[in-house]
Amino acid sequence: QGTRDHPPAQTALRDRLLSAVVSCFKRHGAAAIDTPVLELRETLMGKYGEDTKLIYELQDQGGELLALRYDLTVPFARYLAMNKVTNMKRYHVAKVYRRDNPATTRGRYREFYQCDFDIAGQFDPMIPDAECLKIVHEILSDLQLGDFVIKVNDRRILNGVFAVCGVPESKFIPACSTVDKLDKVPWEEVRSEMVGEKGLSPEAADRIGEYVQLHGGLDLIERLLQDPKLSQNKLAKEGLGDMKLLFEYLTLFGITGKISFDLSLARGLDYYTGVIFEAVLLHQENEHVEEPVSVGSVAGGGRYDGLVGMFDPKGRKVPCVGVSIGIERIFSILEQKLEASGEKLRTTETQVLVATPQKHLLPARLKLISELWDAGIKAEMLYKKDPKLLKQLQYCEDTGIPLAAIVGEQELADGVVKLRDVATREEVRM
Amino acid sequence: QGTRDHPPAQTALRDRLLSAVVSCFKRHGAAAIDTPVLELRETLMGKYGEDTKLIYELQDQGGELLALRYDLTVPFARYLAMNKVTNMKRYHVAKVYRRDNPATTRGRYREFYQCDFDIAGQFDPMIPDAECLKIVHEILSDLQLGDFVIKVNDRRILNGVFAVCGVPESKFIPACSTVDKLDKVPWEEVRSEMVGEKGLSPEAADRIGEYVQLHGGLDLIERLLQDPKLSQNKLAKEGLGDMKLLFEYLTLFGITGKISFDLSLARGLDYYTGVIFEAVLLHQENEHVEEPVSVGSVAGGGRYDGLVGMFDPKGRKVPCVGVSIGIERIFSILEQKLEASGEKLRTTETQVLVATPQKHLLPARLKLISELWDAGIKAEMLYKKDPKLLKQLQYCEDTGIPLAAIVGEQELADGVVKLRDVATREEVRM
Repeated sequence: QGTRDHPPAQTALRDRLLSAVVSCFKRHGAAAIDTPVLELRETLMGKYGEDTKLIYELQDQGGELLALRYDLTVPFARYLAMNKVTNMKRYHVAKVYRRDNPATTRGRYREFYQCDFDIAGQFDPMIPDAECLKIVHEILSDLQLGDFVIKVNDRRILNGVFAVCGVPESKFIPACSTVDKLDKVPWEEVRSEMVGEKGLSPEAADRIGEYVQLHGGLDLIERLLQDPKLSQNKLAKEGLGDMKLLFEYLTLFGITGKISFDLSLARGLDYYTGVIFEAVLLHQENEHVEEPVSVGSVAGGGRYDGLVGMFDPKGRKVPCVGVSIGIERIFSILEQKLEASGEKLRTTETQVLVATPQKHLLPARLKLISELWDAGIKAEMLYKKDPKLLKQLQYCEDTGIPLAAIVGEQELADGVVKLRDVATREEVRM
Repeated sequence: QGTRDHPPAQTALRDRLLSAVVSCFKRHGAAAIDTPVLELRETLMGKYGEDTKLIYELQDQGGELLALRYDLTVPFARYLAMNKVTNMKRYHVAKVYRRDNPATTRGRYREFYQCDFDIAGQFDPMIPDAECLKIVHEILSDLQLGDFVIKVNDRRILNGVFAVCGVPESKFIPACSTVDKLDKVPWEEVRSEMVGEKGLSPEAADRIGEYVQLHGGLDLIERLLQDPKLSQNKLAKEGLGDMKLLFEYLTLFGITGKISFDLSLARGLDYYTGVIFEAVLLHQENEHVEEPVSVGSVAGGGRYDGLVGMFDPKGRKVPCVGVSIGIERIFSILEQKLEASGEKLRTTETQVLVATPQKHLLPARLKLISELWDAGIKAEMLYKKDPKLLKQLQYCEDTGIPLAAIVGEQELADGVVKLRDVATREEVRM
């Protein structure tokens, strides 16, 4: 349940998509690493907040207690700490596992690919963070998924907001996960969850509401830097200062048109410590709709400066920032687009079918195809002793093979091969 | 235990190896499929004989009982049956899981890659089987691993041998797994296991011994076809007839020089029904050694005509033959070769480092690198506001980046970029 086989047509499309993502990661100088699907259970515990219950555990069959990885970020942090790596730009494309309620029509599975790019190391502020946003911008532009916006916020700003609104520090994380729902439900519902379930005072909730409904650009950052309450909070001030720097860098990259500083963005995971971001596709039902409707997040990430330290025996920290591309949702969209276009994706790359027009010519086919393979040419033949020529040409048409190399008795006698263009039926002897 | 992280240098080497294998599979017209790492436990049960105990099971957390796949063949057969596919040429490169005693120095892990190519469908005899052997030959030749031999046998010939030697049919499978040890231990030990543990009569064991120590080529096939006892056995006769046909096809492919018909080859798995084969590397300690020493199997496979039927509710069979490339052992060999050669594999593909020679030029670097990325050029920069030029050039040398694009105050004023060849120190303004 919640997993699936990928037949050839899907695998071909997914390979195309993954290769677009990976070539962007390589363009930015990342190296690939690989980590096991299995992690020690204790490695994964206490990293995913409420979602820890979604971790797949292996049966105790003697030996270590194991679980399937839940994401690629925690294994990366574990890798850095274990190998004492303090500086690395890596990508990782691999499957992760979550015992979630699957919603396969919306691209939510229990086994799914993640495509992660992360930069680990102590650097000058916001330069790697800006590059992560540039990467999201490049990938979403390349894939031509339609209009999108990348929402940006900072955990320090959010925590500053909670502090100046009178929320006790112990309730920052629960408050955060409630704010995170603002992209799906209206403020009134979020407010009542804050007051009801999370036990915030109505006044605190109202004050929070004034902040988290704001979004904008550099102007909003400037305004908040002047905000009499927020500017007094050390964390918020730091976060806003860095946000301003980030916008400067994004201006140099020429991508601020798609960036929105959005105070409602919170992100679910516990381990973020600074900048957080999320890209959503905008879907215009028709041109007259004023507010574009969001069809959901297709990329997200942020800064997590404390996670590596959790795996180091001496708690040595390695600052990290990274991005994860939501490949499954993008795959669903591309699949629908492909279907709508009527285009048929080839599932093989075969260049030529080796065919014979008469009986008893299997040896000639085997000899020729062997020469083609040895020359690096992608070639197939039918696994029949004496197939009909029509069947062989039909196979080319069905599978998109552009050429047929035909050896008949005449060709054998003349020491030639007849090369036929399947589409135009043009033939040359060679 | 028995798993490992792949750091960038290993991942780069493995990617190179996998891409050589995949390009051979594509050259033979295979399509890719992908199946989940998780399978239903019941799917895997009863397929691997004694090795069933090595299957990793997931904890029962409610819902289906799951296990990690043990190989790619059983999931492929399950896929064919579930989707009623009766005709397919596919490859699959993915990780499999075995709770075995790891021997990591010899490349034996609990999580490892398999690279499988299989042909499913009802075809004329031995044509797909011959192609599988051609694929092994191509891959091992391409990778330049040194001399190798591909041993070939047929389960029907082995079963015929057992029958004419007086072994009851119920003991064919145990006898088979004992014969399989002949490549590691001498005949005397195999014989005593047959008589002791497997309960064969000493006379039967001796008669088996006369057959299973034979190996050769077409001549041996002809001799056995004339063997007064074996030629009377229906299964053996069928197997020998097909083996002769196989050798004809392999002669047309020009690869019989590396093929040995070897009656001691048995292969461990239960599901084989016809041709079986295994490729081993030959390692010559010095030129005067007469018998080359085998360094172990690097590829294997065979025909399994009954497996798909086990997953079909009506038991409909789909004949299959396939090959699995032992990528981990090959990887170990390539790694040692690379180390011995002193060659350093690049872990990134970065073409150019964007550098500045003076302070306060971060904006110029960000603007230029952004243009390069947008033009599809693989570019990096240091994540420092004001790095020293020497440090930047040092980074190029350390990571193998061939070019540096330098923008200083002068270049900015002139509207040019200075492109420097890191190795030759040659510079051009452009």
